[in-house]
Amino acid sequence: MREPILFPLDLPELSVELGGGRIRRTVHPSGLRILTEHMPAARSATIGFWIGVGSRDEQAERNDAPGSLGSTHFLEHLLFKGTPTNSAYKIATDFDRIGAEHNALTAKEYTCYYAKVRDADFELAVGSLADMVTNSLLDPEEFENERGVILEELAMAADDLGDVASERFFEEVLHDHPLGRPIGGTPETIRAAKRDDVDHHYRDRYDPSTLVITAAGAVDHDRLVELVLQALAASHEERWHTDRERTPVRRGRGTTPDAPAAAAPKIVKVERPSEQINLLLGTRGFVAGDPRRFAFGMMNSVLGGGMSSRLFQEIREKRGLAYTTYSFGASYSDEGLFGIFAGSAPEKTAQVIELSKLELARIASDGITEEEFERSLGQIAGSSALALEDTETRMGRLARAELGSGELYDLDTSLEQFAAVTADEIKAVAAHFANAPLTVVAVGDTTKSGL
Amino acid sequence: MREPILFPLDLPELSVELGGGRIRRTVHPSGLRILTEHMPAARSATIGFWIGVGSRDEQAERNDAPGSLGSTHFLEHLLFKGTPTNSAYKIATDFDRIGAEHNALTAKEYTCYYAKVRDADFELAVGSLADMVTNSLLDPEEFENERGVILEELAMAADDLGDVASERFFEEVLHDHPLGRPIGGTPETIRAAKRDDVDHHYRDRYDPSTLVITAAGAVDHDRLVELVLQALAASHEERWHTDRERTPVRRGRGTTPDAPAAAAPKIVKVERPSEQINLLLGTRGFVAGDPRRFAFGMMNSVLGGGMSSRLFQEIREKRGLAYTTYSFGASYSDEGLFGIFAGSAPEKTAQVIELSKLELARIASDGITEEEFERSLGQIAGSSALALEDTETRMGRLARAELGSGELYDLDTSLEQFAAVTADEIKAVAAHFANAPLTVVAVGDTTKSGL
Repeated sequence: MREPILFPLDLPELSVELGGGRIRRTVHPSGLRILTEHMPAARSATIGFWIGVGSRDEQAERNDAPGSLGSTHFLEHLLFKGTPTNSAYKIATDFDRIGAEHNALTAKEYTCYYAKVRDADFELAVGSLADMVTNSLLDPEEFENERGVILEELAMAADDLGDVASERFFEEVLHDHPLGRPIGGTPETIRAAKRDDVDHHYRDRYDPSTLVITAAGAVDHDRLVELVLQALAASHEERWHTDRERTPVRRGRGTTPDAPAAAAPKIVKVERPSEQINLLLGTRGFVAGDPRRFAFGMMNSVLGGGMSSRLFQEIREKRGLAYTTYSFGASYSDEGLFGIFAGSAPEKTAQVIELSKLELARIASDGITEEEFERSLGQIAGSSALALEDTETRMGRLARAELGSGELYDLDTSLEQFAAVTADEIKAVAAHFANAPLTVVAVGDTTKSGL
Repeated sequence: MREPILFPLDLPELSVELGGGRIRRTVHPSGLRILTEHMPAARSATIGFWIGVGSRDEQAERNDAPGSLGSTHFLEHLLFKGTPTNSAYKIATDFDRIGAEHNALTAKEYTCYYAKVRDADFELAVGSLADMVTNSLLDPEEFENERGVILEELAMAADDLGDVASERFFEEVLHDHPLGRPIGGTPETIRAAKRDDVDHHYRDRYDPSTLVITAAGAVDHDRLVELVLQALAASHEERWHTDRERTPVRRGRGTTPDAPAAAAPKIVKVERPSEQINLLLGTRGFVAGDPRRFAFGMMNSVLGGGMSSRLFQEIREKRGLAYTTYSFGASYSDEGLFGIFAGSAPEKTAQVIELSKLELARIASDGITEEEFERSLGQIAGSSALALEDTETRMGRLARAELGSGELYDLDTSLEQFAAVTADEIKAVAAHFANAPLTVVAVGDTTKSGL
């Protein structure tokens, strides 16, 4: 069996040939890490500045203190709002004038600022991103404007029943855990947020030891390292200067907790006028490094991974009960979720829940067929190969490996792991969920659902 | 100035080198058209089977007759439901086992069935798509199940305030025109739909003269032509046999109507409990072939095309009134729309409308700056180049050129056209819309909006 590529924190340089391209990694004494994947045929590149800090790292109990709920996401917005040398407008025009895809995302365990650009525009993108991440001013007037923008973003999500269901599902399944909290905070915490507290969060959490820069496509590793070190040396903020040694920060991997979070099954109804119920059911799942993740991938593919999956066939194709239905897993360093989604008319919801449980239980008791095994393997191989054509996918893969386990499974290595999964392992994974107390979240006109 | 590549209907073969790749086109005596763009570095391909028939071609006045409202979209669903040699389940598994992206879409002027696959899976995808498009059974039992699925799809759209606003905006701006109708029909027309009527629509509208097959990426044109002709010759349905000569059908291009559709400005409110108003304002726009489309593209980029655009700056960045705001154009063979979207709290909606009108009027009176001109050109160049890295974009570009005007503007040719736009032309385009009676559609808690 092939082994993953390892990213030890004390290894200054690494260079590995991979499928015609090359992965390189530099760990600077300052704690800064830079990883690239050169793709010979690429004429563009995606570059990301990742900080290993996400919403789970906020302090829920301190509503208006540094790092209160939603401050990670608030800070992400503010990093677009200007530095001593570039105004917010200049940052926007710099990326617009080259037609870049330029955005950021705040997740539960990390924050990422990225741009996809033509090869000729690569250096410009690196310079702008470095300036945003290291030199942002968090201007008080911009802070107030952005508060309004974020309140609108939360309002938009509150009007989306799928978003409401998803946030509530995380909250109910992982209720006491920081991973169960909403990423963006709440309207209350955003209204209460203070500029100096978000600034404190920025100064406290953003430095070379938490920064990981990854790029894929038409990239020159040595040139990128040079550009980034120059930018950090020129930073207006002393904490970015790379002459001080720091240990890079990596989130450790826990193990999947044995006991389920909920002691008993529960049904949570969120009443909203609607045509459909947005339904989620599931339970705690596997942490990111769990050895069962390959068996889970195969089980999930058969249960709810495509048009030929059991949920799609039983709920949509045979009975016309839903337009959308699928199953999914979400894994973090010390927690995970497993869930099934369906959107259907209120009067069909109870039947959809029964069918979902039944199909999960059937895999737990009878396993999957050989044909399903081969199909899942082919689906994972084909869809992964297509996804990896994109520079963005490869840029993200590098960062998640570096920030997470420190292990990169390239496509061939993963496929060997999936192929080695046994029928019993797949049954055991399904049984793990089938036997757990299920949490059901139903958002919509639940009065007609009979739940 | 460069010229577009022309696709005359009576030209049997065409081969043009383009940016390192090659475009080839075959017009078969049966009316069938096959177009490919070979991309030398690609390891995958996207293939689409396009029919030049969309929802606008339905007969709105005949609720349960062949081609009634929603029947084009209903038919699109049914083409996944089985042929004499492949069951619906077999079709689903054939694509899932290779990890393909496989889907279809019904638009107002065409319908498309497509798949993105690794190069090794290309022939399999062609075979499956050809079978679906030419041999579908429209089984009565599958028809009933699918009715339920489509009703759920409509219910999902009805719960999405953005979708509701968009459909209503088309309806109000183009009210008497078939392009103003919803693509999927209504719950009433779907409940009334009869299997034999949809089948009639299929037999009447789908044949070699309306079929355009396009592929981009790792494709061999000659092999594709061979495969498709074999598949059509083997079809269970006589109308697909290619021994009969037919004239290929192409939708003609009209000219942009002089008079606006609405005689006076109007405000349409759709009341729904919500946190935000989904706001659309706009008017009739340009048809697809309008010579002003390049000036429109530049004007639209400056008005609402990115983070540095005037709407984004005035509405979001300076005032925090919305999270999302942008402007857009939609062009069809004989009609078009121009619109501005924003999502914001009800009490901010009136201000957003005023700012939107003001920014449009400012371009109409003062034009854009030189810096904005250069930035727009750069934005169009960069974002188009990035988009064209994807085989799906190129596959779609070929089809839209063939089904529409018969003219393909490659990237360099388009950029010359954009660069040649004058300041006066941009002002004139903005004035065209600023002087038209605007239609405003507001969906949400409109009672608080003061509209």
